[in-house]
Amino acid sequence: MTKIAIPEGSLFGPDNLPYGIFSTADSEPRAGVRVGDSVLDLSQLFDDIVFAEPSLNAFMAQGRARWDEVRAALKTMIDGDVADDAVYPIADVTLHLPIEVADYVDFYASENHASNLGRLFRPQNPDPLMPNWKHLPVGYHGRSSTVVTSGVDIVRPCGQRKGPNDEAPVFGPSIRLDIEAEMGFVVGVGSPMGSQITPDEFADHCFGAVILNDWSARDIQAWEYVPLGPNLGKSFATSISPWVVPLAALEAARIDTPVQDPEPLPYLKGSEKWGLDIDLAVEWNGHIVSRPPYAQMYWSPAQMLAHTSVNGAATRTGDLFGSGTISGPEKDQRGAFIELTWGGAEPVQVGDETRTFLEDGDEIAISATAPGPNGTRIGFGEVRNRILPA
Amino acid sequence: MTKIAIPEGSLFGPDNLPYGIFSTADSEPRAGVRVGDSVLDLSQLFDDIVFAEPSLNAFMAQGRARWDEVRAALKTMIDGDVADDAVYPIADVTLHLPIEVADYVDFYASENHASNLGRLFRPQNPDPLMPNWKHLPVGYHGRSSTVVTSGVDIVRPCGQRKGPNDEAPVFGPSIRLDIEAEMGFVVGVGSPMGSQITPDEFADHCFGAVILNDWSARDIQAWEYVPLGPNLGKSFATSISPWVVPLAALEAARIDTPVQDPEPLPYLKGSEKWGLDIDLAVEWNGHIVSRPPYAQMYWSPAQMLAHTSVNGAATRTGDLFGSGTISGPEKDQRGAFIELTWGGAEPVQVGDETRTFLEDGDEIAISATAPGPNGTRIGFGEVRNRILPA
Repeated sequence: MTKIAIPEGSLFGPDNLPYGIFSTADSEPRAGVRVGDSVLDLSQLFDDIVFAEPSLNAFMAQGRARWDEVRAALKTMIDGDVADDAVYPIADVTLHLPIEVADYVDFYASENHASNLGRLFRPQNPDPLMPNWKHLPVGYHGRSSTVVTSGVDIVRPCGQRKGPNDEAPVFGPSIRLDIEAEMGFVVGVGSPMGSQITPDEFADHCFGAVILNDWSARDIQAWEYVPLGPNLGKSFATSISPWVVPLAALEAARIDTPVQDPEPLPYLKGSEKWGLDIDLAVEWNGHIVSRPPYAQMYWSPAQMLAHTSVNGAATRTGDLFGSGTISGPEKDQRGAFIELTWGGAEPVQVGDETRTFLEDGDEIAISATAPGPNGTRIGFGEVRNRILPA
Repeated sequence: MTKIAIPEGSLFGPDNLPYGIFSTADSEPRAGVRVGDSVLDLSQLFDDIVFAEPSLNAFMAQGRARWDEVRAALKTMIDGDVADDAVYPIADVTLHLPIEVADYVDFYASENHASNLGRLFRPQNPDPLMPNWKHLPVGYHGRSSTVVTSGVDIVRPCGQRKGPNDEAPVFGPSIRLDIEAEMGFVVGVGSPMGSQITPDEFADHCFGAVILNDWSARDIQAWEYVPLGPNLGKSFATSISPWVVPLAALEAARIDTPVQDPEPLPYLKGSEKWGLDIDLAVEWNGHIVSRPPYAQMYWSPAQMLAHTSVNGAATRTGDLFGSGTISGPEKDQRGAFIELTWGGAEPVQVGDETRTFLEDGDEIAISATAPGPNGTRIGFGEVRNRILPA
């Protein structure tokens, strides 16, 4: 039996307890929880077969009362000694995609980002925001099959592009490969077809949050996206961090969203605060180039889920929804390189080099932290991926 | 032992053999094949656990050689006598959603439909087709969780709409509820992330075809769809027919697509013909109001699958892709009511009544047939659903 060491100032103290799927060299993927620099094997600590599964879905489907029960039990366990064979140093484990993704929907909830992209993609429009933007959380369905986790290499996608001066589209590797720094939210308990989830029911359905990188090929996207939205410009890869931070760990991070004016329709209003004070950092080849503030997001994740289901669409365990790129008002708070470099016109310094879009071999890591209780902070870890040539 | 009776002129003769999932009052869902007016229980006829599953996915994942083997074995079996306990009258079975849907992508491959919708949604544009339309099969990801089958009632969705004269959006049940008559294609064998499927590899990956109804709330769609495409206007329901007609049954239906000009990029070209001569019929409260011809579709399903994967996106067993509304050049060949009634301006006669969009209690059935060998025809059955009030 061992007392789990938690280093001073660790972002993975007893108030965080994020869940993930891990394996070791000689064992199969199963559920674990991160405490300090250790991973606790939930399949050893609890007599419940859900923790032996290679995704968190079965556990997430058990519902909020069970999530609370397991979290409380874990806090008690790590106050005492834990069986040695249930504890692994983080350096000794491989982390896997934590959830089996059902439907993936990506939103567009940052006013700064939507305004910047409006100016870049539709410079002829006087108002960069579309008329619907302040009335509903605009979103679209993305591809679930290509959601991967940290450490998976991203192959530069090929596709069609057509510059304003090209007579016809050309085919080839994307030359404007970009990221979108987002948070992702994971549905634990779904809702049947024909029912709705209200914003105040959010915590009964949402299990937790991850960091999400919505890889984007801007040249492919710009040519294909009218009128049905992004498809191949996004569908080649979406990466999420391997640790799912439970919603219960984000109590101290809950804040009001920015003022929503005009007032949203009643189905988008709730009495609970679901703005979140999460700070992200985008690292490009080891250099931090942006610090997007989630606190600036116009639409809350509770509103996104309420919107998704208001037409009676079913939601399911494993549904993933992205916030959309997080961009603050300052240039160094922009969560996509198309904004940070203003469509490539203003290269950024990345260490000794300059960059507009991603080059082969580049590595991007997005990390995030949030306030915990009593002035502490909790961490989401990171999602880190490298670009391979097409 | 019984010789299966096949009525003269049956659309479900030995050259069709569509697969589905069925149950009886006292048995669980499992795989069956339709022959005449009987359903043969594959879990009884073959010593393979895949047929005891409640979806066709495990069988589909076995690949083309196995699909051919089972089809050949079935033809031999129905030439002879079949064990009585493996045969059920079609009237005694309940049919279920035949596949577990992985990713669902909906295309927009009819030039007539895309032109009609361009005129209706964007009357200010001189060219109803977007510049990209003849260069790539435009498509978007839809919601997998709300794919249902024939017989499931469709609840009228609620959502935001904003008419041109409304100051602000209003919330309520859709008042422009519509259908889209499409064909759907089901992926049996997927492809890993980073790989591509060429048009000539289509039959190694695509298991078969179904009829698909892409239910659409035009008022919700018109307000939400800029710039990221349809979301809640479509995500409340998509219905597919319960029988999956194997690609091998469509040999006699294979034709050239209409001439594609400009010439598609090389990744969209193949030597095989994958246009399909399938005739659909749309029945509104028992009256046929439209006969959309699939033969008119500009882009083939082989091109749609090649496009989906050309950026390295993974495909999976159970992926479903829709063709987009099938509309011929004639008014009574239009596969969506927004086109058939020209945005509601030209009501259609439905028996003794007139209609623009769907009213509560309305029932829509879409059926389809295709040429079989030697002048015969094969059937896809139908997808039939009724509208319930919001």
